[in-house]
Amino acid sequence: MTDLPTETPPLCVVGTVAFDDVETPSGARSGILGGSATYFSVAASHFARVGLVGVVGTDFPDTYRRVLEGHDVDLAGLEVDPNGSTFHWSGKYEGDMDQAETLATDLNVLETFAPTLPEAFRASPYVFLANTDPKIQLSVLDQLTSPRLVVMDTMNLWIDIAREPLLEVLKRVDGLMINDAEAKSLSGEDNLIAAGRSLLDFGPSFVIVKKGEHGSFLFSRNRLYALPSYPLDQVVDPTGAGDSFAGGVMGHLAGENAQRVDDVCRAMLYGTSVASYTVSDFSLDVLADLERASIEERTSELRRFVSP
Amino acid sequence: MTDLPTETPPLCVVGTVAFDDVETPSGARSGILGGSATYFSVAASHFARVGLVGVVGTDFPDTYRRVLEGHDVDLAGLEVDPNGSTFHWSGKYEGDMDQAETLATDLNVLETFAPTLPEAFRASPYVFLANTDPKIQLSVLDQLTSPRLVVMDTMNLWIDIAREPLLEVLKRVDGLMINDAEAKSLSGEDNLIAAGRSLLDFGPSFVIVKKGEHGSFLFSRNRLYALPSYPLDQVVDPTGAGDSFAGGVMGHLAGENAQRVDDVCRAMLYGTSVASYTVSDFSLDVLADLERASIEERTSELRRFVSP
Repeated sequence: MTDLPTETPPLCVVGTVAFDDVETPSGARSGILGGSATYFSVAASHFARVGLVGVVGTDFPDTYRRVLEGHDVDLAGLEVDPNGSTFHWSGKYEGDMDQAETLATDLNVLETFAPTLPEAFRASPYVFLANTDPKIQLSVLDQLTSPRLVVMDTMNLWIDIAREPLLEVLKRVDGLMINDAEAKSLSGEDNLIAAGRSLLDFGPSFVIVKKGEHGSFLFSRNRLYALPSYPLDQVVDPTGAGDSFAGGVMGHLAGENAQRVDDVCRAMLYGTSVASYTVSDFSLDVLADLERASIEERTSELRRFVSP
Repeated sequence: MTDLPTETPPLCVVGTVAFDDVETPSGARSGILGGSATYFSVAASHFARVGLVGVVGTDFPDTYRRVLEGHDVDLAGLEVDPNGSTFHWSGKYEGDMDQAETLATDLNVLETFAPTLPEAFRASPYVFLANTDPKIQLSVLDQLTSPRLVVMDTMNLWIDIAREPLLEVLKRVDGLMINDAEAKSLSGEDNLIAAGRSLLDFGPSFVIVKKGEHGSFLFSRNRLYALPSYPLDQVVDPTGAGDSFAGGVMGHLAGENAQRVDDVCRAMLYGTSVASYTVSDFSLDVLADLERASIEERTSELRRFVSP
């Protein structure tokens, strides 16, 4: 994007950076690099330069910082809180791994997090508000100077305890990404198609419902679009799939400077490809070493997979 | 198909004709026309003439017979057993209706059913073996004289209690249609992609895994294909969806006299369209009154729905 100040990343994400303990049928890992902003940034970095806004504690190691920097992720917005530890999540997947059982959530530095966007980030045209307190999402919206496409995620916790501010955010974003259970809960509709459609009434011009292994739906006033997941013989760890998908979608849009609904549908192919790499190993083990050419190849394969 | 004797239906189905009692969140009906061969035949009749092989009791009313005859379904293979009542199934769906809870299954005339195909049916080139005892399926295979494409369905009961004869049938058919839980159970694989792929080792050249509201997958040695369900705001009664899908697929193939895997993928669009009508009301209430033009229109809409 030639009209941006060089220091402004075309894509900005506000979300979590975390230490994860994860147990799946394939094994267990602890203290691995996780968090919504982490997965999002690395996934998106294959398509566009990303500015990350988040917070860690003084315990966040340089090796993890270098993983992000190695993908040219701008960490000017990654606050280091001297008074606490990095956010920590612990979870377990069983059987077909369609849902994580959360074993522990230690918010730590997240409890007092009030993001201040670096001056250069405020002009980012593409912005993703990962799942956080809607009040934090509102404060980020207030700091943006020239958004072209703002997309948000959320979760059941906020639907249950912070519905009002959440509805405020929804009025001010272009897109919502949400999983199927959350879409039903937020809309009050049992049928997923009815749920997705009715969420458009809350304000966004498109809604993407993420269905895990069953793929994703896009709802807009003029178009419905369905995309299956990339077929994988083995899923090792589903953690970060949704955020990687979002990173692939938003990264591709930012890289192309595209924001129409048809562009979003095409970008979902890239999000789906990238997410399929994420779940094929723990943490960022595969995602971080990925070449753009592999993503393109898998995306072509995905197109064939869904073409009658 | 000009090379067939005029009395031979291009498509033959062997399965059940039933009285259903169904309860869903939309209401309850009892004694309605159901059964795998019924749904299959009416769905397929929009594309090709169908010969139905099954059994009913003397309690089977003429009104129901006329529903089938009204779709030009050849009932020469519908035996009337003078010693019993028509097969009766009673089931209930709740919540997102992804699974039926069976309340009662009265086999009645099915208990002693040993199908004899009318002479004219034996030459049918397209054959669907709906879910029945694998021994019955084997006896039907023995009666076929010139099959071009034979596809079977099955269920968990036979996977559990009649695995050996089931594996015999699998060696002798071209295609298997099966739902996701059954695919996992039959293959012993937790991952659905691994399950679908490994079922090819049992013999069929393609496997279609039906995933209800999540659509269907086709697995073959050279091709994987995924198709979402047609998006419906409201599902009234899912009964018969899988058999209608099979009817749409096989009917379209028989109508076009096509049997390559690529043809099967395209036929899945028609099966999906037709099944979406079935679930939008009880029994055959919508399916039976359908015009071919409506199916074509919905199929085009489905193509747009899945095109990036």
